[in-house]
Amino acid sequence: MELTIALDAMGGDHAPQVVIAGADMARERFPELQFMLFGEGDALRRLLASRPELAARASVEHTPDRVGADAKPSQALRQGRNSSMRLAIDAVKDGRAGAAVSAGNTGALMALAKFVLKTLPGIERPAIASLMPTRRSEAVFLDLGANAEVDTANLVQFAVMGEVYARAVLGIAKPTVGLLNIGTEDVKGHDTIREAAAALRASDLPIEFRGFVEGTDVTSGKVDVVVTDGFTGNVALKVAEGTVALYSQFLREAFKSTLLAKLGYLLARPALQLVRQRLDPRRYNGAMFLGLNGIVVKSHGGTDALGFANAIGVAVDLVQKGTNERITGELHRLEEEALRGRHARAS
Amino acid sequence: MELTIALDAMGGDHAPQVVIAGADMARERFPELQFMLFGEGDALRRLLASRPELAARASVEHTPDRVGADAKPSQALRQGRNSSMRLAIDAVKDGRAGAAVSAGNTGALMALAKFVLKTLPGIERPAIASLMPTRRSEAVFLDLGANAEVDTANLVQFAVMGEVYARAVLGIAKPTVGLLNIGTEDVKGHDTIREAAAALRASDLPIEFRGFVEGTDVTSGKVDVVVTDGFTGNVALKVAEGTVALYSQFLREAFKSTLLAKLGYLLARPALQLVRQRLDPRRYNGAMFLGLNGIVVKSHGGTDALGFANAIGVAVDLVQKGTNERITGELHRLEEEALRGRHARAS
Repeated sequence: MELTIALDAMGGDHAPQVVIAGADMARERFPELQFMLFGEGDALRRLLASRPELAARASVEHTPDRVGADAKPSQALRQGRNSSMRLAIDAVKDGRAGAAVSAGNTGALMALAKFVLKTLPGIERPAIASLMPTRRSEAVFLDLGANAEVDTANLVQFAVMGEVYARAVLGIAKPTVGLLNIGTEDVKGHDTIREAAAALRASDLPIEFRGFVEGTDVTSGKVDVVVTDGFTGNVALKVAEGTVALYSQFLREAFKSTLLAKLGYLLARPALQLVRQRLDPRRYNGAMFLGLNGIVVKSHGGTDALGFANAIGVAVDLVQKGTNERITGELHRLEEEALRGRHARAS
Repeated sequence: MELTIALDAMGGDHAPQVVIAGADMARERFPELQFMLFGEGDALRRLLASRPELAARASVEHTPDRVGADAKPSQALRQGRNSSMRLAIDAVKDGRAGAAVSAGNTGALMALAKFVLKTLPGIERPAIASLMPTRRSEAVFLDLGANAEVDTANLVQFAVMGEVYARAVLGIAKPTVGLLNIGTEDVKGHDTIREAAAALRASDLPIEFRGFVEGTDVTSGKVDVVVTDGFTGNVALKVAEGTVALYSQFLREAFKSTLLAKLGYLLARPALQLVRQRLDPRRYNGAMFLGLNGIVVKSHGGTDALGFANAIGVAVDLVQKGTNERITGELHRLEEEALRGRHARAS
């Protein structure tokens, strides 16, 4: 199946070099891909000159502008009309591209994507979802920061979206879903989360809802999808990153502490590099803005070509698995259920 | 200075053995300590028989009852009147002991401690605080789960209590304080946290408030005290634990993966054991219930003697540094400031 991906070639700390190099890696991996490269035309053509195979499958779409790394969402909306980020999203809206990928400013990207694409029917607020490594394999974790505050309906919608995302990206037939809480007993947490759990239990959506899970379960593999609000999710994601950094620093210090430890490190180095790879943030690069009427994937701003190629891979998966169509279908079902429930109560 | 610590000898997964063994380790470390051991008299006397030095500095207080590991807080309040946990807290209330330490059920311990001791003047809700390892040294982190929902005043009080705790337990003259948020810009987060930041900035309390910090800063050492609500704090603490478990599992698998890696592990083992020690939850055992009119320290339920001895050490620090007197003083100052502010606005 041919598929065109729109790339914001000017977004991220090392744009446009990393974007072009990442696109070239993705091209090797996915022979069916075409690219629309939005950005400074001359610079992009210069970079493509040394990559003829990519050049043959990419169009350069010159854009006079770019969204700055510290631009506020409101600024991006007002002043970003001709930016590479905005025009890449426009290409998804117009149907010229199946998905957009950007390593630019998250807040601006979310604001532009919401403004241009609107949310899916039945979704009040989009959420940011990504994969986390777990002791068993990988899990979907959301919301990672789009919504600092949520209500019960938001959490239920996040659960539906996360479950569909897990089927698409992890390829699990019946993903299990847990709501992040401070204990697994029914009385734990606050009203919003208890009500969301009750709604998910009561629903006959085809979701394997496993109730509450705890912070340890973000990486334990107990469930395939961990659902929370954007405040808790963002903090949790960054705590996990910080803990990996702490552990890695302690290991580095230990391996330098004695002559024997240094020798041990040399012998174990190839194996230890596999550990680093398994925990490498680049492996988990590519956070999806779930709930929009179009696929937009956010790459980490500081990533390299491999990380950017992985973000493109996430976009490809999401398009090919019909993620948004599935989400819309499930939400429609949820709504009908709610209507039936209301009728039942009324009669 | 002589000091008596009341121990709930029946609390925790391995009580009373671990409690007695932990008390014996603490006795060696703190020659000035006396112990009141609350629990099943015969069992305690049997355990003391082989520990004459501890027996010489401990009184056995027979209690007919104990609080179960899965007892609800309301149950503990109604039925726990003659439990080892309740009577250990009563000893603090009556002034017979300077602090109580329990490895029992957290919810029950908090409910009993609040009921018996009441909160300090100026404190609406107690918080659970503990130490976290950081890339620079250690930080105080609170609330770890006492309050799933907080308001602005609660967060400000947590900041005051956390700062005093850091001075007492970490011995830092001017601890820096950060509010956990999903970004460091002023506009990030939700109203409660933004208002708490504004209140801390406006106050002339002697607190080195550094504004918002992110999840990575729980372990980065950017500030000495990280303040958050009990929902986020509990999730963050458990995410950190889960991430350490994930990393450790990946390392174990790597060291077993090849013959060279196995040999490397053997050479580096003593150094790696230091890493394990630095991340050992037992090192950070002993969470304080801050804001109560008396010192109560919660030990992890599954800890061993070393961990329990460390929890006793935390209690000793808190008593000797006059933590509660300091908290009361600072809150009194905060209240006077607020009154002055109201007068200034009124005139």
